[in-house]
Amino acid sequence: MTNGHLDVITRAVKLFDEVVVAVAHNDQKQGLLTTEERVELLKNTTSQIPNVRVTQFDGLLVNFALKLEATAVIRGLRAISDFEFEFQMALMNRKLEQSIETLFLMPKEEYTYLSSRIVKEIARLGGNVEAFVPGVVAESLREKFTLG
Amino acid sequence: MTNGHLDVITRAVKLFDEVVVAVAHNDQKQGLLTTEERVELLKNTTSQIPNVRVTQFDGLLVNFALKLEATAVIRGLRAISDFEFEFQMALMNRKLEQSIETLFLMPKEEYTYLSSRIVKEIARLGGNVEAFVPGVVAESLREKFTLG
Amino acid sequence: MTNGHLDVITRAVKLFDEVVVAVAHNDQKQGLLTTEERVELLKNTTSQIPNVRVTQFDGLLVNFALKLEATAVIRGLRAISDFEFEFQMALMNRKLEQSIETLFLMPKEEYTYLSSRIVKEIARLGGNVEAFVPGVVAESLREKFTLG
Amino acid sequence: MTNGHLDVITRAVKLFDEVVVAVAHNDQKQGLLTTEERVELLKNTTSQIPNVRVTQFDGLLVNFALKLEATAVIRGLRAISDFEFEFQMALMNRKLEQSIETLFLMPKEEYTYLSSRIVKEIARLGGNVEAFVPGVVAESLREKFTLG
Amino acid sequence: MTNGHLDVITRAVKLFDEVVVAVAHNDQKQGLLTTEERVELLKNTTSQIPNVRVTQFDGLLVNFALKLEATAVIRGLRAISDFEFEFQMALMNRKLEQSIETLFLMPKEEYTYLSSRIVKEIARLGGNVEAFVPGVVAESLREKFTLG
Amino acid sequence: MTNGHLDVITRAVKLFDEVVVAVAHNDQKQGLLTTEERVELLKNTTSQIPNVRVTQFDGLLVNFALKLEATAVIRGLRAISDFEFEFQMALMNRKLEQSIETLFLMPKEEYTYLSSRIVKEIARLGGNVEAFVPGVVAESLREKFTLG
Repeated sequence: MTNGHLDVITRAVKLFDEVVVAVAHNDQKQGLLTTEERVELLKNTTSQIPNVRVTQFDGLLVNFALKLEATAVIRGLRAISDFEFEFQMALMNRKLEQSIETLFLMPKEEYTYLSSRIVKEIARLGGNVEAFVPGVVAESLREKFTLG
Repeated sequence: MTNGHLDVITRAVKLFDEVVVAVAHNDQKQGLLTTEERVELLKNTTSQIPNVRVTQFDGLLVNFALKLEATAVIRGLRAISDFEFEFQMALMNRKLEQSIETLFLMPKEEYTYLSSRIVKEIARLGGNVEAFVPGVVAESLREKFTLG
Repeated sequence: MTNGHLDVITRAVKLFDEVVVAVAHNDQKQGLLTTEERVELLKNTTSQIPNVRVTQFDGLLVNFALKLEATAVIRGLRAISDFEFEFQMALMNRKLEQSIETLFLMPKEEYTYLSSRIVKEIARLGGNVEAFVPGVVAESLREKFTLG
Repeated sequence: MTNGHLDVITRAVKLFDEVVVAVAHNDQKQGLLTTEERVELLKNTTSQIPNVRVTQFDGLLVNFALKLEATAVIRGLRAISDFEFEFQMALMNRKLEQSIETLFLMPKEEYTYLSSRIVKEIARLGGNVEAFVPGVVAESLREKFTLG
Repeated sequence: MTNGHLDVITRAVKLFDEVVVAVAHNDQKQGLLTTEERVELLKNTTSQIPNVRVTQFDGLLVNFALKLEATAVIRGLRAISDFEFEFQMALMNRKLEQSIETLFLMPKEEYTYLSSRIVKEIARLGGNVEAFVPGVVAESLREKFTLG
Repeated sequence: MTNGHLDVITRAVKLFDEVVVAVAHNDQKQGLLTTEERVELLKNTTSQIPNVRVTQFDGLLVNFALKLEATAVIRGLRAISDFEFEFQMALMNRKLEQSIETLFLMPKEEYTYLSSRIVKEIARLGGNVEAFVPGVVAESLREKFTLG
């Protein structure tokens, strides 16, 4: 979770009644943080933003959106490579479930080129990532890489 | 106005209370159709869609959006070249007016590669553009190019 | 193998005397399906298309093309990310073997954003992929993920 | 007409029985050269290549292709911006006429970034364009800009 | 001339002994400002930056670079569409003159999506462009559009 | 290391007093060659180029650049996908250390589409990669894949 994600959430709450931040739970691919840790970090960083709920889900995003009776999925759009993948995802989600629309929002331009992959690499090499991610995430990355 | 634009409007009305289709009036650049003709065509093609209003405006889009007390500007996103220009526009509009957010929607994939420039060129060469634009627009283009 | 691949094969047979669908055999990277399973699925899905032969090969594609006395390699071109990789492959193949030309064909636009990676992910999560791949492939993915 | 176009023609004749180089005649947009001059230059530069015919046409390309009983339209694919436009054109042509397929060929990589717009600009400024276009085209540009 | 150009100049002076800002003079295409006005604006905005010289030139950029005994041409690189055009220009310049290398620098990310075309359009519509261009340029645009 | 990298180094030495080729040492990801083997190959292939030093480093590139009192990081820019990643890296490096600028150089156009991933794949399949990489690298790849 980078400052770019946080920025997109902040913008989304101004446009919609409720925003649910949905963290995909993946049995097979264990990332640097567990799903629970991710949810916890997101709850911490969004605790001051009204009308935001953080939750995890299993299975397909569109099914979860249906269950929540959401009208739209919101995604941040950064750069070109993003665009391709986001377009594919959105069109496939539309094929899977016609009633769920995908909406794209732009993060602040200084977050446009934030890549969570590069942030992780900088943290791994001992660099300071506080310009890129919320404080609690920076701290969490620091712990992981010091212990790991 | 292509079927892609119409598709984006249809999707937008499902997400927002009211959708205003805003046609920029440009003194200096006279297109194939006048602003009034554009507004008329848009009114015809959207007359069956609830909660849509078609109108023209002068000056900056963000100022018009402020006047309407709109919360967001909605744009259709098609392909890569689009993306660049749309991104520039959206970031500049944000600089001009922080309170107006730009939201992007994808048209149906069969409209993804519709280009109004190529549609116009096909019409000019006598081709049938009914697969690309609403019927009244096709007719209007036919008239223009037969008379012009 | 998605509907996009099938669409490209169908278009290719109209242009050339014989089309060989060549499945690369890779010792090192075992995908979801074995090479033999892939060949079998392709044979099933292309059995109604005349002048198509499905076969597997080892080593470099250009060497296999030479052995078949093929005049061209045909590739489907979808979106931008594709384009980069396809261009690199085609130029490198040309360097390796001047006499083999690479030709690109566009799949139907509704297949433009089909990504086999996302299809696999949807299948893994229990989603219905019948809109994206031929029936026998959907069934095969279902079996794999139910058993796996 | 650049060396890139010539390179694509040379590659196409190896793959197909006959290649027709079709120059669009445009009443409204008079380029640097007339349609007749273009045809003449193309005839000169392709005179040594077997099975090539140069001709001009009016109206839609797909209609001309139908009249010629062509099976495919061949286009050179260079870089990304190309790709977008070429994709749009090819999909629109397919909509206009299902039976005509568009095939893409890559020019030699040293021609990949050749832009006829930049070549023209270099010629206008008195630069030597012989590295970019066939000799007769370079000469013709030189004459145009010296007289013009 | 946008804040992005100014940012690139400021970065370039830190890397090279002398930076020459070269304004192309074009007889045929008269922009909003004359070449002399452009040079004057650039002189004003760069007057505080050491080792910068502003000058105009005729003909090919590489010839002018040779005359100045420059070792490299420096260009700002913003977004994708830029990249294509810049690549074409740089490769063609290299073909015209092997000894001149083109170097690319990135402007600050908040200038990444600045488009002089959109800035001009905003100014034409009476918008405030002071966030996008240096003060004297904003003033100059205001005058042009008030009088014009 | 491909011919493209070598080409960029050759261009860089003409512009700067000293060029340091810095090989990142990565504990965690063991590539086909060890860091030491990479350094050795680079020393062999650059031994004839004046003012080039090859060395390895740990940690963040910007910290290493600071230690060397370098004024700029030089990167080769090839194609679009490159561009995105390079832009992200350069902007992040700038955030980490303001005083280090990233400069981009274009390799010769015939190296534009060289991908080290595809080169490695060709070598693995027994293909001849001498057109793509320096002789000693080709030999080294051949040995690796014959023994491996």
